[in-house]
Amino acid sequence: MSALSRIGVAIDSDLLEKFDALIARKGYTNRSEAFRDLIRDELVEKAGERPDAAVVGTVTLVYDHHVRMLSEKLTDIQHEAFHHVLSTLHVHLDHDHCLEVLVLRGKSAAVRRIADMLISTKGVKHGRLVITSTGAEL
Amino acid sequence: MSALSRIGVAIDSDLLEKFDALIARKGYTNRSEAFRDLIRDELVEKAGERPDAAVVGTVTLVYDHHVRMLSEKLTDIQHEAFHHVLSTLHVHLDHDHCLEVLVLRGKSAAVRRIADMLISTKGVKHGRLVITSTGAEL
Amino acid sequence: MSALSRIGVAIDSDLLEKFDALIARKGYTNRSEAFRDLIRDELVEKAGERPDAAVVGTVTLVYDHHVRMLSEKLTDIQHEAFHHVLSTLHVHLDHDHCLEVLVLRGKSAAVRRIADMLISTKGVKHGRLVITSTGAEL
Amino acid sequence: MSALSRIGVAIDSDLLEKFDALIARKGYTNRSEAFRDLIRDELVEKAGERPDAAVVGTVTLVYDHHVRMLSEKLTDIQHEAFHHVLSTLHVHLDHDHCLEVLVLRGKSAAVRRIADMLISTKGVKHGRLVITSTGAEL
Repeated sequence: MSALSRIGVAIDSDLLEKFDALIARKGYTNRSEAFRDLIRDELVEKAGERPDAAVVGTVTLVYDHHVRMLSEKLTDIQHEAFHHVLSTLHVHLDHDHCLEVLVLRGKSAAVRRIADMLISTKGVKHGRLVITSTGAEL
Repeated sequence: MSALSRIGVAIDSDLLEKFDALIARKGYTNRSEAFRDLIRDELVEKAGERPDAAVVGTVTLVYDHHVRMLSEKLTDIQHEAFHHVLSTLHVHLDHDHCLEVLVLRGKSAAVRRIADMLISTKGVKHGRLVITSTGAEL
Repeated sequence: MSALSRIGVAIDSDLLEKFDALIARKGYTNRSEAFRDLIRDELVEKAGERPDAAVVGTVTLVYDHHVRMLSEKLTDIQHEAFHHVLSTLHVHLDHDHCLEVLVLRGKSAAVRRIADMLISTKGVKHGRLVITSTGAEL
Repeated sequence: MSALSRIGVAIDSDLLEKFDALIARKGYTNRSEAFRDLIRDELVEKAGERPDAAVVGTVTLVYDHHVRMLSEKLTDIQHEAFHHVLSTLHVHLDHDHCLEVLVLRGKSAAVRRIADMLISTKGVKHGRLVITSTGAEL
């Protein structure tokens, strides 16, 4: 954690009023925190574009566990990528469907490649990757 | 144009340094302007989600003008929607391909509907809608 | 699971070649599966836009656990929303930073509201919501 | 234009029904065209990620023309980048606000850089870049 800077920002009063209303709806109690979140979101977005950036990613998968050999295939991919897979959460959505969230860590390109492999596996109905930060650089 | 408010924002020095580097790369000469742009982008994003919000949209279309009756169809759609179509720009990309940008204005739902109709027309190879603001509320 | 339909799709050979190359890179072994994924992704995208759609969401949070009372606040929000929180995964990223993934279930508007509250909490450095499906309708 | 391939795609009947309903709402009269659009959109998305890909971009700018020297600055940037600027469309939105759409052509990195410079100019209230294709490779 670094020292705190206090900077001045000039904003048209109308615009500020709209921003304050928006962040209140979102649950912010502190305007500076809302600004910091805008900045951090922008930085994470940019960092994720570099293939060699150190990132953390979460992959959300929804699949039908009745599909033959699907769990085995997903497990195989994870084991081959075990250096990058930190942890996995499994939720039973209904009689047929599972949701799995994996936390991956590594270079952006590697994280994307593993996510692509999981999402493209037959039987996975929907998948999405979120690229976020290791926290240290934010 | 409203009065200008000057507010204080507290930001960790490290984070501020990274933000300053990012906006310098983007061409900002003024940090307040970068903050205002983040705010306005967020407000436009949220406004566009409401179907009855008054918006301006630009539709980018790339198409092959050799496709039979395509120009006629695109023109027909635009004429039926003439209340919403402010203007159109046409560029010849190569022997076969045209790019057309339309400026639409109206409620968000109507603008999306017209964009969907144009983009789904056979022969249009790629299309994208940008929802922006009439400017007055920013 | 419903019956399987087999449909014919006409595609320019060049375009098909490029698509095949793309999906091979992503790890698909089956072209139909790639098409189904494109469709499902589009359907999930559209469904998530309706505030009353039944969805599953995963929220990824990165935060500094040293921030005073932060864990308590995040836990409080989750308990108030316990009807919607199915499960939570926690990963220690380094000495200071934690990653938490929550699986939420409910109407799209409620899931978004809970995600906004968590992400806007002071000390949460980065957060993202993924809206996905309960699987049943895909 | 290349030869047309006719391929078979296997899709669960329920999923197909939902897809057909979605594309009908969007205005498609032809299912193959909807599939081709999904493919092309994916290819454009991927191509735009490579900094040296040949792309076409459209930049949408909303600005207040009363801001001193703004038009001059925007014109200067365009003239410096004249090799990349194909054409410009200008619309008067109200007493104060203008919308300008520029069509850019060049390598993805150069198009993004010019868009960043335009959008970051003080007085530009909102800006967005759409990366699309020259058409030839779709």
